[in-house]
Amino acid sequence: MSVFVLVHGAWHDGSAWEPVARHLEAKGHQTLSPTIAGHGKGAAKNVNHAQCTQSIVDAIAKQSLSNFILVGHSFGGTIISKVAEAIPEKIRRLVFVNGFVLRDGHSLFDEVPPHTVTAFEALAAQSSDGSVMLPYPVWRETFINDADEPTAQRAYAQLSPSPAQPFRDRLDLKKFYALTTPRSYINATEDTALPQGEWGWHPRMSSRLGMFRLVQMPGSHEVMYTNPAGLAEKLVEAGRD
Amino acid sequence: MSVFVLVHGAWHDGSAWEPVARHLEAKGHQTLSPTIAGHGKGAAKNVNHAQCTQSIVDAIAKQSLSNFILVGHSFGGTIISKVAEAIPEKIRRLVFVNGFVLRDGHSLFDEVPPHTVTAFEALAAQSSDGSVMLPYPVWRETFINDADEPTAQRAYAQLSPSPAQPFRDRLDLKKFYALTTPRSYINATEDTALPQGEWGWHPRMSSRLGMFRLVQMPGSHEVMYTNPAGLAEKLVEAGRD
Amino acid sequence: MSVFVLVHGAWHDGSAWEPVARHLEAKGHQTLSPTIAGHGKGAAKNVNHAQCTQSIVDAIAKQSLSNFILVGHSFGGTIISKVAEAIPEKIRRLVFVNGFVLRDGHSLFDEVPPHTVTAFEALAAQSSDGSVMLPYPVWRETFINDADEPTAQRAYAQLSPSPAQPFRDRLDLKKFYALTTPRSYINATEDTALPQGEWGWHPRMSSRLGMFRLVQMPGSHEVMYTNPAGLAEKLVEAGRD
Repeated sequence: MSVFVLVHGAWHDGSAWEPVARHLEAKGHQTLSPTIAGHGKGAAKNVNHAQCTQSIVDAIAKQSLSNFILVGHSFGGTIISKVAEAIPEKIRRLVFVNGFVLRDGHSLFDEVPPHTVTAFEALAAQSSDGSVMLPYPVWRETFINDADEPTAQRAYAQLSPSPAQPFRDRLDLKKFYALTTPRSYINATEDTALPQGEWGWHPRMSSRLGMFRLVQMPGSHEVMYTNPAGLAEKLVEAGRD
Repeated sequence: MSVFVLVHGAWHDGSAWEPVARHLEAKGHQTLSPTIAGHGKGAAKNVNHAQCTQSIVDAIAKQSLSNFILVGHSFGGTIISKVAEAIPEKIRRLVFVNGFVLRDGHSLFDEVPPHTVTAFEALAAQSSDGSVMLPYPVWRETFINDADEPTAQRAYAQLSPSPAQPFRDRLDLKKFYALTTPRSYINATEDTALPQGEWGWHPRMSSRLGMFRLVQMPGSHEVMYTNPAGLAEKLVEAGRD
Repeated sequence: MSVFVLVHGAWHDGSAWEPVARHLEAKGHQTLSPTIAGHGKGAAKNVNHAQCTQSIVDAIAKQSLSNFILVGHSFGGTIISKVAEAIPEKIRRLVFVNGFVLRDGHSLFDEVPPHTVTAFEALAAQSSDGSVMLPYPVWRETFINDADEPTAQRAYAQLSPSPAQPFRDRLDLKKFYALTTPRSYINATEDTALPQGEWGWHPRMSSRLGMFRLVQMPGSHEVMYTNPAGLAEKLVEAGRD
């Protein structure tokens, strides 16, 4: 049996993993789903990427976990890359779930289409606290395209604005790219949160991992809501030795 | 429950949608499957693209339909793009099923591999009425690759020559590209009617739709014959709000 | 009912096809799974590509087979291309299973990422007989990524070093590219033995076949071990008229 540390993406908090965690626990695995600093309803949004990373390192230390599988969804991919630099000896395997694998020296904003950056910066400028909320139509059509309307709305109600600074921070990833930690990439084949093709998740992001294990499943960027049982199964396939 | 207007592709007529329409109707939906002018057995083939479009606009007007989901398969994608320009207020959502999404000012022939244009123009030149029939080996290997031989032959027997002029007509699509009608793209993952990759349907054609909902399913270009129940399900997923 | 001649890939021998062959035979088909010269445990490794090809031509002649479906997996794709040049009149259809379709004048090493060639040449230089053994971590992560660990180890125990010279031999394929033998390509969608994208199997290799039938299935490069029943089914779909 394994220990899974599940790191959520932008607009989510740790509760996004609850249905998946229940399925993993039903299979006998242990899970931890911490909320990243600056994320979740009511959190202060003035955090940078380093603070986001530190909050996950702290949550792991508090539980004295080791030999765990570290999972990052979407923006969470940038977090687990830096967590892996901080505590490599504690991690059995990294699993990216349609997660960002940034080039060394890049920010998340350096890796998404320019019109997305423009749109998100405009939203941040309009907000009172420099945060960005994902507009519902974008969510419905390109993030959770495999859901029916009630599911899409119910899941959207669980989202909250994301701090923009962690999207802008350029990350030194030299240590990450020198690590030999085993790594897997789960790609949901209908994920269009990044447009498929030139700007897509796979193979663009995944191939940066060098030797990695590819696991695919049908579904959108938000399979943790639309198919939590299926994602739990794929996490086991991605996380095993 | 929804209303689906189903527009067929080249070499087909409205009857190609019959099995899919039966499945949609069994789920409580209403359907209309008009035959495009110049298409179908016995039809005069001397039509241009504007006449093709007008015939569908007329068929919709005759039934006084509104608030419907307008579906276009293959060449039918070029038709629904122009129908959407003509009667945008009547359309709830556009659904392209491995359909052509032409660039503004392009013809269908501008968007397929040059050797295909050469082959089709030669067939048109050899015909008595400027029409093109799809050769059986191309049909069997690259259009209906997921069928067994009897199914491939039975479906081929339902085809008829297509007028060539609508493939040549360059379309002004400025109005289409200014529309905000919601839109979806269904991609059958084994469709090789256009070669996958550089000349493929998805993401090449689909990405031109801007924000769109991606729905995928296993199958060939001719899933309406090889998996009508599956396609009906995907049309519901693609067509819902 | 059909006759299938199944040609294995590098590191394998004819026994790799046994589970698939059992499933094909249970459906009433006949199979032959010869071992390529220089392959298999205990075989002398000093063979070139021409000798590999001749050994399969000989195995087919010995059984007096004709009108068969000739299947090649991976490196086996280079073998069936040359066998098809030698005895085209005996072959009903060619089926590549994530198989190499080399450009005329290319070697297998001309078609894989340069760092792979460097690594394999280093392994060949270190061996006593100029052969190359696939390292277990590469096998586990990128060849048999869909297996659990015990299956991955059990299958690895069946592998043996491959002669390096057939990877280096540049092949004259002019006759192959002039053949009109029907051909299919089976692509397992999680196959990362070649990295997906720019260096991938499909559509890079498959598109070189001209008009071909695409058949896809979930799974890794080693679906003959991880899903032999599924592969047998897809071989029937790929092999039928």
